[in-house]
Amino acid sequence: MSIDIITIFDFVGTFAFAISGLRLAAAKHFDLFGAFVVGFITAVGGGTLRDVLLDLPPFWMQTPTYVSITGLALLFVIIFKKQTVKIDNTFFVFDAIGLGLFAIVGIEKSLSVGYPAWVAIIMGCITGAFGGILRDTFINEEPLLFRRDIYAMACIAGGILFFVLRNIGISEGFCQIGAAVSIFLTRILCVHFGVNLPLLTQDKNKD
Amino acid sequence: MSIDIITIFDFVGTFAFAISGLRLAAAKHFDLFGAFVVGFITAVGGGTLRDVLLDLPPFWMQTPTYVSITGLALLFVIIFKKQTVKIDNTFFVFDAIGLGLFAIVGIEKSLSVGYPAWVAIIMGCITGAFGGILRDTFINEEPLLFRRDIYAMACIAGGILFFVLRNIGISEGFCQIGAAVSIFLTRILCVHFGVNLPLLTQDKNKD
Amino acid sequence: MSIDIITIFDFVGTFAFAISGLRLAAAKHFDLFGAFVVGFITAVGGGTLRDVLLDLPPFWMQTPTYVSITGLALLFVIIFKKQTVKIDNTFFVFDAIGLGLFAIVGIEKSLSVGYPAWVAIIMGCITGAFGGILRDTFINEEPLLFRRDIYAMACIAGGILFFVLRNIGISEGFCQIGAAVSIFLTRILCVHFGVNLPLLTQDKNKD
Repeated sequence: MSIDIITIFDFVGTFAFAISGLRLAAAKHFDLFGAFVVGFITAVGGGTLRDVLLDLPPFWMQTPTYVSITGLALLFVIIFKKQTVKIDNTFFVFDAIGLGLFAIVGIEKSLSVGYPAWVAIIMGCITGAFGGILRDTFINEEPLLFRRDIYAMACIAGGILFFVLRNIGISEGFCQIGAAVSIFLTRILCVHFGVNLPLLTQDKNKD
Repeated sequence: MSIDIITIFDFVGTFAFAISGLRLAAAKHFDLFGAFVVGFITAVGGGTLRDVLLDLPPFWMQTPTYVSITGLALLFVIIFKKQTVKIDNTFFVFDAIGLGLFAIVGIEKSLSVGYPAWVAIIMGCITGAFGGILRDTFINEEPLLFRRDIYAMACIAGGILFFVLRNIGISEGFCQIGAAVSIFLTRILCVHFGVNLPLLTQDKNKD
Repeated sequence: MSIDIITIFDFVGTFAFAISGLRLAAAKHFDLFGAFVVGFITAVGGGTLRDVLLDLPPFWMQTPTYVSITGLALLFVIIFKKQTVKIDNTFFVFDAIGLGLFAIVGIEKSLSVGYPAWVAIIMGCITGAFGGILRDTFINEEPLLFRRDIYAMACIAGGILFFVLRNIGISEGFCQIGAAVSIFLTRILCVHFGVNLPLLTQDKNKD
């Protein structure tokens, strides 16, 4: 995986995550600044928690790129207000790409500061999924992730695959590609076929 | 207080805290992963905030024990679904034990990095009580702790006792036991006798 | 800006921020401890997030002053329960003073650890505005800041002014005064004249 492709996917993922926050903010009629904050938290919240837990400088404070991408996403939502509803599938694909890539970034960063595989897998999951939890918490909704379809679990599965591949001697780059693609495909296929995790209680499923 | 007893209490407390998160998640019909996350946040959230504020590596990232205990707690709730409702009192006692122990761990960690008594007492309180605040915030409920009975205040009282005992020359181990027991008893007795803190306004108590 | 004036404004701002949390807690009939926690989070939450992101020791753990001011604010609200409602305008002015000062503290702290202007401006904004977001999140309300009038944007504007003045060679102290006053005035004037940011969607404004 060359740096350039990772970088492009990182930006695409950030854009897709920001859009998901902005659309919820628009549905709640937030003002432009509030919407920007929600989009930004969605895009960088997971990675920020990861960096704080790993005691690393927050990634988005090292380059203005992530703030700018969120600004572009806001501009995009303002200009293409009506169209954003219609291109749901495109965003869903972008979001799944972002999920796979963010998880890999989380794994690599954890390994780089000496944490073992199980911490790296959790950090991959936090990087991919915690932005959405923070988004829902701040807009005062019950986090979708706690009920919805396979999302964070795809990061866990992909993270495990990463270390399985690595332990059988596959080169780092192919481990990354394999894990990212598996997260992407798990996410896409689970939604396509309506695969869900079981609920904790099945007695009276009134939601 | 030998390391072994502290360790056992730490695990028991973690288990009890995780169960309290899992039960609320079950009541909200979260899926298994969402329930696990809520249980885990309840169990380690307070200690994680403490470690971040003290600039220490988060404790649960140093050993897989806490993730495993939350997994066991999830298994326990799945298997003994009906019974967990009936053994409320047992969990309440476990939770009170955890509260006392967590507070002591928070105090000791703060002192070990050079903070004064008042910071240590607050960190003890955060360790014991903030997991529950985070749990309620993420499941989109108003934190129980803001209204309910004596909970965090028991940590404060126990923390003050710890430093009173320490200043009169009691050995560290006995200060720990004394404070942990006092937190446990304060919690148990206040609930038993229905002792509450006054509300900030009494005019129209419409809740 | 001498240290003494900054210190006084810092305390006044902390007091005003704590009061704003305490009044919301009172409206929700929290108990005294819960109210204290909400007041404290409102007062120090923004600065704490800033310090964690900058990897600095949290400011309120270095001196008991901020805990004490929150305690005084709680005492004030208990004693002057009825009057606090009537002196809204006074608190509004205090809050705006706090906003301006907190933003400057956030900017200066960021620069002191080597971050560039754009990070400093964001940190100024987080210092001034994130306490209120945390307050609303913990009491389970949708953050006011996401919809309301010009608040965080005043910090951004003041932060930009700070660096414009600095780049044209104005001395640090005057940059600080200029930015703080501009934030204060922007806030006061926008509320007075009902200036708001546009909402992200205007189609069906059903709130």
